[in-house]
Amino acid sequence: MSAKVGVIMGSQSDWETMKLACAVLEELNIPYEKKVVSAHRTPDLMFEYAETAIERGLQVIIAGAGGAAHLPGMVASKTELPVIGVPVKSSNLNGLDSLLSIVQMPGGIPVATVAIGNAGATNAGLLAAQILGAFDKNIQQKVRERRERIKQQVIDSGSLE
Amino acid sequence: MSAKVGVIMGSQSDWETMKLACAVLEELNIPYEKKVVSAHRTPDLMFEYAETAIERGLQVIIAGAGGAAHLPGMVASKTELPVIGVPVKSSNLNGLDSLLSIVQMPGGIPVATVAIGNAGATNAGLLAAQILGAFDKNIQQKVRERRERIKQQVIDSGSLE
Amino acid sequence: MSAKVGVIMGSQSDWETMKLACAVLEELNIPYEKKVVSAHRTPDLMFEYAETAIERGLQVIIAGAGGAAHLPGMVASKTELPVIGVPVKSSNLNGLDSLLSIVQMPGGIPVATVAIGNAGATNAGLLAAQILGAFDKNIQQKVRERRERIKQQVIDSGSLE
Amino acid sequence: MSAKVGVIMGSQSDWETMKLACAVLEELNIPYEKKVVSAHRTPDLMFEYAETAIERGLQVIIAGAGGAAHLPGMVASKTELPVIGVPVKSSNLNGLDSLLSIVQMPGGIPVATVAIGNAGATNAGLLAAQILGAFDKNIQQKVRERRERIKQQVIDSGSLE
Amino acid sequence: MSAKVGVIMGSQSDWETMKLACAVLEELNIPYEKKVVSAHRTPDLMFEYAETAIERGLQVIIAGAGGAAHLPGMVASKTELPVIGVPVKSSNLNGLDSLLSIVQMPGGIPVATVAIGNAGATNAGLLAAQILGAFDKNIQQKVRERRERIKQQVIDSGSLE
Amino acid sequence: MSAKVGVIMGSQSDWETMKLACAVLEELNIPYEKKVVSAHRTPDLMFEYAETAIERGLQVIIAGAGGAAHLPGMVASKTELPVIGVPVKSSNLNGLDSLLSIVQMPGGIPVATVAIGNAGATNAGLLAAQILGAFDKNIQQKVRERRERIKQQVIDSGSLE
Amino acid sequence: MSAKVGVIMGSQSDWETMKLACAVLEELNIPYEKKVVSAHRTPDLMFEYAETAIERGLQVIIAGAGGAAHLPGMVASKTELPVIGVPVKSSNLNGLDSLLSIVQMPGGIPVATVAIGNAGATNAGLLAAQILGAFDKNIQQKVRERRERIKQQVIDSGSLE
Amino acid sequence: MSAKVGVIMGSQSDWETMKLACAVLEELNIPYEKKVVSAHRTPDLMFEYAETAIERGLQVIIAGAGGAAHLPGMVASKTELPVIGVPVKSSNLNGLDSLLSIVQMPGGIPVATVAIGNAGATNAGLLAAQILGAFDKNIQQKVRERRERIKQQVIDSGSLE
Repeated sequence: MSAKVGVIMGSQSDWETMKLACAVLEELNIPYEKKVVSAHRTPDLMFEYAETAIERGLQVIIAGAGGAAHLPGMVASKTELPVIGVPVKSSNLNGLDSLLSIVQMPGGIPVATVAIGNAGATNAGLLAAQILGAFDKNIQQKVRERRERIKQQVIDSGSLE
Repeated sequence: MSAKVGVIMGSQSDWETMKLACAVLEELNIPYEKKVVSAHRTPDLMFEYAETAIERGLQVIIAGAGGAAHLPGMVASKTELPVIGVPVKSSNLNGLDSLLSIVQMPGGIPVATVAIGNAGATNAGLLAAQILGAFDKNIQQKVRERRERIKQQVIDSGSLE
Repeated sequence: MSAKVGVIMGSQSDWETMKLACAVLEELNIPYEKKVVSAHRTPDLMFEYAETAIERGLQVIIAGAGGAAHLPGMVASKTELPVIGVPVKSSNLNGLDSLLSIVQMPGGIPVATVAIGNAGATNAGLLAAQILGAFDKNIQQKVRERRERIKQQVIDSGSLE
Repeated sequence: MSAKVGVIMGSQSDWETMKLACAVLEELNIPYEKKVVSAHRTPDLMFEYAETAIERGLQVIIAGAGGAAHLPGMVASKTELPVIGVPVKSSNLNGLDSLLSIVQMPGGIPVATVAIGNAGATNAGLLAAQILGAFDKNIQQKVRERRERIKQQVIDSGSLE
Repeated sequence: MSAKVGVIMGSQSDWETMKLACAVLEELNIPYEKKVVSAHRTPDLMFEYAETAIERGLQVIIAGAGGAAHLPGMVASKTELPVIGVPVKSSNLNGLDSLLSIVQMPGGIPVATVAIGNAGATNAGLLAAQILGAFDKNIQQKVRERRERIKQQVIDSGSLE
Repeated sequence: MSAKVGVIMGSQSDWETMKLACAVLEELNIPYEKKVVSAHRTPDLMFEYAETAIERGLQVIIAGAGGAAHLPGMVASKTELPVIGVPVKSSNLNGLDSLLSIVQMPGGIPVATVAIGNAGATNAGLLAAQILGAFDKNIQQKVRERRERIKQQVIDSGSLE
Repeated sequence: MSAKVGVIMGSQSDWETMKLACAVLEELNIPYEKKVVSAHRTPDLMFEYAETAIERGLQVIIAGAGGAAHLPGMVASKTELPVIGVPVKSSNLNGLDSLLSIVQMPGGIPVATVAIGNAGATNAGLLAAQILGAFDKNIQQKVRERRERIKQQVIDSGSLE
Repeated sequence: MSAKVGVIMGSQSDWETMKLACAVLEELNIPYEKKVVSAHRTPDLMFEYAETAIERGLQVIIAGAGGAAHLPGMVASKTELPVIGVPVKSSNLNGLDSLLSIVQMPGGIPVATVAIGNAGATNAGLLAAQILGAFDKNIQQKVRERRERIKQQVIDSGSLE
């Protein structure tokens, strides 16, 4: 089945974080593709990726980047698909620079920003699933079941010693 | 036509910001509803709103709040729909508290966070449209045309004096 | 004796911090209960916990959470008991997000916020004791004696070499 | 009836903020006293105020201060009563300095910190009421009724135009 | 004479700031061009501008933008010319977001970042002049004379009353 | 010879930092005393220490503390001697809370604040020496010679490989 | 009588703040001089000022500057006198940049930093007086009397309505 | 061939970072010199270095420093050459202090600031090359080729597992 979600990241070192988004997509059985696409090192490739996303059948794009993180916002400027931005933790400012570079988009071009780092990557996968799920009851049901399992884990969590 | 997008906000004073989200939805002809729902002052109403959102036919929820902004995250915990969070500018910390309270969600429950304040509210409307547009070529086309108009405005912007 | 203080936390991983609150309560012989209650993963359980707190005889609630820490504020919105919030250190922003998410509550629903991390957890236990002690001279005396012991430790602290 | 809550502030200019705490106490019919007590300009008076608070019948102290806000923490070090700290908005750093100076107390001496500025002052009055209310069903009931009124206002809030 | 410096900005509202860069270039008699080029609203135009900059004879590019300010970094990724980035003051975070989005570029693509706002725009003009001046003694001399005039103004600054 | 400089700190754990201040005083042969004096755990001792400082012959006080660091400011409120404040690095906010709690004193009571952590402690010792040296040419000369030695070390620093 | 305190500032616009330091020195009858000396626009003048300060009879230097505030630290590197740094409020970052640029000096060259803005300028005057007062009982007595007057004002502060 | 780029740093400990700037210059075959020059410990040497830079044939200066990082700005005030500032990561505030001390220069004296730490040092070398390359097609070509190699690495980056 052709990919519905495209997962891209600014550098190979972001994979350690971004693989959590892919893990969620796999867990929920959602077809996706993944690729390193750098806003600064491969700008033309980035534009081409974004421009062809709709025709290739993608419905959501997840883009992770750190520091002056321009990938999510620039991809968003080149496609009408919803783009989810994951601020990867940066080495010096703990991802605050990544977060502000991604979330503070000017009016006109939104990026759906999630939390810094691992929690954000996991949630990017889930948000993509919830977007798809709003139009596919089967996926929505899988998200519901995943939440149910996690709720049960909290409730079952034994003694706090 | 029944509402596809629910726009809620923590207090009436957030309307000044959140009306920009509604303006975009109207511009793009997307049916929506709007309401004040406070996480802290009407918690049961909030839960009920979130729990019934899917059955009432909503496909996206936009939630704006300021300060210790719990509305987007709590609504997100009670529905499998995608929830877009708008950090409303707060009176003392300029919305940095709103932003962190909304975006730093733990793994499991994502909130699609946009920019602080007016730009964020406008973009929340557009992000909702882009989510719907991923499954409705008509809406996607309207987003494309809106971008085209804005691009033209930039190009036409006359002398910078 | 039935619990007077309820100690809750958003995830099992918060126990490492929150056990310091429990240690103080034990040291001062104050009956308490402890539980993992997640705002985002078990929202209904959270509401039920808060709604039944008064009838179950609790007089103070201590709630610890990290990141977009909604647990203390949401519990506070569902009970008239004083709620003490402990900002657990987060992995990326050092607990600054936890602190702002807990302390910046809107007018109407207060959370008694203490310091980030271990010092805060210890102080949450002490603040609960001081609240109880304002109405129970026996507990107030125990707080006084604890302070006296610690004062003596400072005075006795030997040579600084 | 003798005061149960002492409301103090570091300077007369803090009254603009701190009067909101007093307004809540009056609304809920809780006897209180108010005074300017400066940690840095009247340190001995501050110590005397704190040392005699219990014997004068106070059960909660609310202390507001801005900048390097030492008043709440120093009062807390001199009394076993619960001390609520209100970070008054400072002229240069928007109250972030006030907040950190009040909330980041070392283990041993807690300050129950509320939000920066007006929301915090209102909540300090409410938190004092909730502390008293944990031991006085009459006050607790008044807090409940106040919440009910405010909830109704949210629900009644008319059209958002 | 054909332009040596290209001054671009993300939106017409940045002109209020960026005109100070142009004022310096005019004062020092350096030929320049100016244009609104938006990273997010006119991405293709931006790429074209950057790609053709060298062949059109530019030697330095000055790019100003605010918020999630991607213009300087994206232009830098598409030309080998030195790019000077001016963080325009943003409405909510005072330009801290603009600064971090511009300066925190990953290794490989530098942006020569100057101060936030007006001082930065003035300095962008001067930095462009100093870069040209390193290869053109005439321009370097003009920078020297400007400094001399300003030094004299400081020395001549009369009584401080 | 009786101590001219008093070095105090809020807890024994601050010694690791504050011993650098003492090391400078020893190196420059300036008599000093050192002690743990806690603002929050031994407030009366702190006041007594400050009140008797002048009569005991001290001419400068160095006070180090972390977190909600009240020691330097409170000592300053109780003596007319110059008080140097050292912000000790805190475990969660890297000493930013310590810095703001010490430096943001209200008009009326100054604290001479130095850098966070080790550099600050060293500089506190040097600043005390420079204050004494403004009235004692012998000490001033020692400071000058120390600077000369350090300058020589920089110049002698060999190849940078 | 020749000046004992030199008050310098980076630009004439800093006078609005720095005049508060001079007002205190006048109030306490301490001879001082004042001058605009810019680190960046008149670096040689700054060095000459610092190098000749001791021989001209100065005993303390107060230096105010904003933004990348290099004046206090650079003057400190050129004289063994104690240098007090006043972070002048900057237009964009509220003086946080000024504060960090002044206080975070490396080990070896201290700057006695006071609060941002007006409170800091007043306190710089007082700190200079306290430094002189440690060696001149007359000045120390004047500082004591000033504090006494201010204490009385707090105590006399009438009703808080 | 005589050095075109001067690489200086405030302390030998900055070499670990600054060597990355030198590595780029070597890779691109650009003659450079390197030296420890401290703003605070060797201020006269710093001035002499800056004053003689043009006559010695330098065309760009790269200056790295941490904390209250005055070296880049002070060198910039003493030469008309373009000065690139590298904020070295500081031990307590992660280089945020270094960044603000370098970038927030007042109008009149620019510093071309790059990212904090290693990425910034690499980019300082590249920015120097790009400045030289604007006037030397050979160097510009080398920069282009380096980018091409890096782009290829991104494209060739294999499977993300």
